[in-house]
Amino acid sequence: MRIYDIIKNKRDKRELTTAEIEYFIENYTNGKIPDYQASALLMAIYFNKMNKRETLDLTKAMINSGDTVDLSRIQGVKVDKHSTGGVGDTVTLVVGPMVAACGVPFVKMSGRGLGHTGGTLDKLESIRGFRVELDEEEFIRNSNEINICICSQTANIAPADKKLYALRDVTATVEDLSLIASSVMSKKLAIGSNAIILDVKIGSGAFMKDLDDAIQLAKAMVDIGDGYGRETIAVLSNMDEPLGKAVGNALEVKEAIETLKGQGPEDLFELSLLLGSKLLVLANKVENEEEGKKMLIDAVESGAAYEKFKELVKYQGGDLNQIEDLNLLPKAEHVIEVRSKKEGYVKSLNAEEVGKCALMLGAGRENMESIIDYSAGIVLKKKVDDEVNKGDVLAEIHCNDIDMAKKVEEHLHEIYKIGAKNQEVKKLIYGLVTKDGTELY
Amino acid sequence: MRIYDIIKNKRDKRELTTAEIEYFIENYTNGKIPDYQASALLMAIYFNKMNKRETLDLTKAMINSGDTVDLSRIQGVKVDKHSTGGVGDTVTLVVGPMVAACGVPFVKMSGRGLGHTGGTLDKLESIRGFRVELDEEEFIRNSNEINICICSQTANIAPADKKLYALRDVTATVEDLSLIASSVMSKKLAIGSNAIILDVKIGSGAFMKDLDDAIQLAKAMVDIGDGYGRETIAVLSNMDEPLGKAVGNALEVKEAIETLKGQGPEDLFELSLLLGSKLLVLANKVENEEEGKKMLIDAVESGAAYEKFKELVKYQGGDLNQIEDLNLLPKAEHVIEVRSKKEGYVKSLNAEEVGKCALMLGAGRENMESIIDYSAGIVLKKKVDDEVNKGDVLAEIHCNDIDMAKKVEEHLHEIYKIGAKNQEVKKLIYGLVTKDGTELY
Repeated sequence: MRIYDIIKNKRDKRELTTAEIEYFIENYTNGKIPDYQASALLMAIYFNKMNKRETLDLTKAMINSGDTVDLSRIQGVKVDKHSTGGVGDTVTLVVGPMVAACGVPFVKMSGRGLGHTGGTLDKLESIRGFRVELDEEEFIRNSNEINICICSQTANIAPADKKLYALRDVTATVEDLSLIASSVMSKKLAIGSNAIILDVKIGSGAFMKDLDDAIQLAKAMVDIGDGYGRETIAVLSNMDEPLGKAVGNALEVKEAIETLKGQGPEDLFELSLLLGSKLLVLANKVENEEEGKKMLIDAVESGAAYEKFKELVKYQGGDLNQIEDLNLLPKAEHVIEVRSKKEGYVKSLNAEEVGKCALMLGAGRENMESIIDYSAGIVLKKKVDDEVNKGDVLAEIHCNDIDMAKKVEEHLHEIYKIGAKNQEVKKLIYGLVTKDGTELY
Repeated sequence: MRIYDIIKNKRDKRELTTAEIEYFIENYTNGKIPDYQASALLMAIYFNKMNKRETLDLTKAMINSGDTVDLSRIQGVKVDKHSTGGVGDTVTLVVGPMVAACGVPFVKMSGRGLGHTGGTLDKLESIRGFRVELDEEEFIRNSNEINICICSQTANIAPADKKLYALRDVTATVEDLSLIASSVMSKKLAIGSNAIILDVKIGSGAFMKDLDDAIQLAKAMVDIGDGYGRETIAVLSNMDEPLGKAVGNALEVKEAIETLKGQGPEDLFELSLLLGSKLLVLANKVENEEEGKKMLIDAVESGAAYEKFKELVKYQGGDLNQIEDLNLLPKAEHVIEVRSKKEGYVKSLNAEEVGKCALMLGAGRENMESIIDYSAGIVLKKKVDDEVNKGDVLAEIHCNDIDMAKKVEEHLHEIYKIGAKNQEVKKLIYGLVTKDGTELY
């Protein structure tokens, strides 16, 4: 077998065999196939696509390129959740403790943020002492004892994906559905949870800018999960504006805790309830979504969900005082109120631009070497469809650099589009994709 | 400017600007753009093509990546000839002396053979002492004194093309018209001849297997030449079977000399006459093709063309005795006659396969390190449409390795397709492509 022929086959629109895909991944990972042949193949894939079978084979080959994490020593039906990335996306910190409080093990290996989207691990690390690097024993023990563990990948998960992703990133070959889907799923499936829920974001702050593309991506990922023998469903949710109100690490932790106490933003709670109830169904804890939502609401109202978050923090070495008194979480020196110069309704609030503002304030990473300011960020006081009067506070800027805050303030005035009331009411959830099909709400 | 954006532009079907193409070639040649980005761009070009303007810009950028050869110190209108490569293609050794004998400077920097096609320099080096590596002074002096010089490229001609071609070769991105045309033309145009004739080969032994593709390639090359301000025309000629009868270095030199004496194979002479007469027109030596052919035939009949060949050999250090007595040229130990087992007509004689047989005998290069056996090769005694009786000699195998000869003999029996007479008479010349259009015969 020669890589030249594999490139030529895909260039000429032929379906690659399982053996060809395995050969490519194995020999690219071990360095026998050079980057310049891999990038030519990736571009040929970009143009001629891969079908369902090829995409599943690619995913399997990438999983097999590294270690897999065996969760069989954790009792029960383990569930995992993945978001395709958004701004102010604090769902994991809400849904994890909620489903764990209902007795379902929520076992998540998470990543860090890059660019305008935040990372769950960064958020958790804004709690003093919180450790995300756990060894396998601790990971298994925590999951068994308190049903929840959120930590970083320590194993060598899907190194082929890591190498390929870096290459795609510099060769304009990121934007292919099969490549995106197999990249996400290889990392998820390498970790042996029984069921996976995917939160596919759509809109200005998401990778997928429109619904049709997002449906295609969701289908591709669900097909891979199903083909690999894992229960997988995808929720399609809005990322035209940020989710919730807080954007920034400590600010989002605070918001997650408030939500677990039943006092958080409505959209964050609603999406968490949907994802959580689906997970409870997948874990056979309840019969249907309605029962699931009821059980989750009970867990919030009884305080069990909040207690579960505290257990998570305690087991992973975090400072409980900061959870019990949210004023002790990292706080920015300055809080600047951005006041509206216009009146009307918020017509749009571009999530990516808000994310970039948070990045400018130090809440995110420009590159992997950046140091995060956990206290920095933005709290949105007005969101899309809200009525606004002149002088109303649109948002708060939390920051330690007053010059940067001024720039962000100007930028936020541009981002808040204020005018006549939108004709259509915004949607939080667009629909659901399962192996049986797509259901749009 | 970023190479990432250039790749993305071409991926998304946008026309590249002159500045983008220059940026790519300059920074790829100097190593600032890595192979893996260049190969992604090449594959995007393969899919989305380049238009006439982009192709010309690419050619210019490749010319400017290295040295150009100034021929202004050679008097007269200088002409050059290029073949896209074939088997038994001895035309340069015939047409060069013929036009030089008519007073037109024939100035050619040539390449070596690789794979199943032979190279002019290798053929000339089968003459004892013949030097192809000339310095600029010698090159200019010979051209001025005897109107002919055939030597190797010593200058650093189009290094960008050299680097890109090597990359295309291993990334399945050779087969794109713009890339092929700009590769050929950048090397031709870097050498300052006034007029160029291109012999575009079509058929089993050529790069282009069918007429339509060959016409497109010819057009692309003529457009580049014209855009660069050089008189350029292309002849479309048959390479379904080898040209002439000899395939192999010394064998082809012998055949060329016989042709210059008016005793060579008809097809080789006819094609040489056509190309030569076009060159005489381009050089303003004659008014039209007919006058040109007459002048060339006179040069053969008077012995001037043959004398010119001898001058070429003398000026470049070759042994004239071998020219005056062709039996002194390198001779193989064994000459094996391949005799027909069937009767009928030769229906086809796959040129590429014949070329591979010659390669097996040692007449060509498997790779750039191979050492050539100048004496080895094949003489075709029967060609397409010839009548054959059982026991007739189809071909002679000239070789020094009797075991290999046996294999080649078997192979030749397979290559000679013998049966009923072909309905259509074979064509040697399909037509002509000039800047004014395509004329099919």
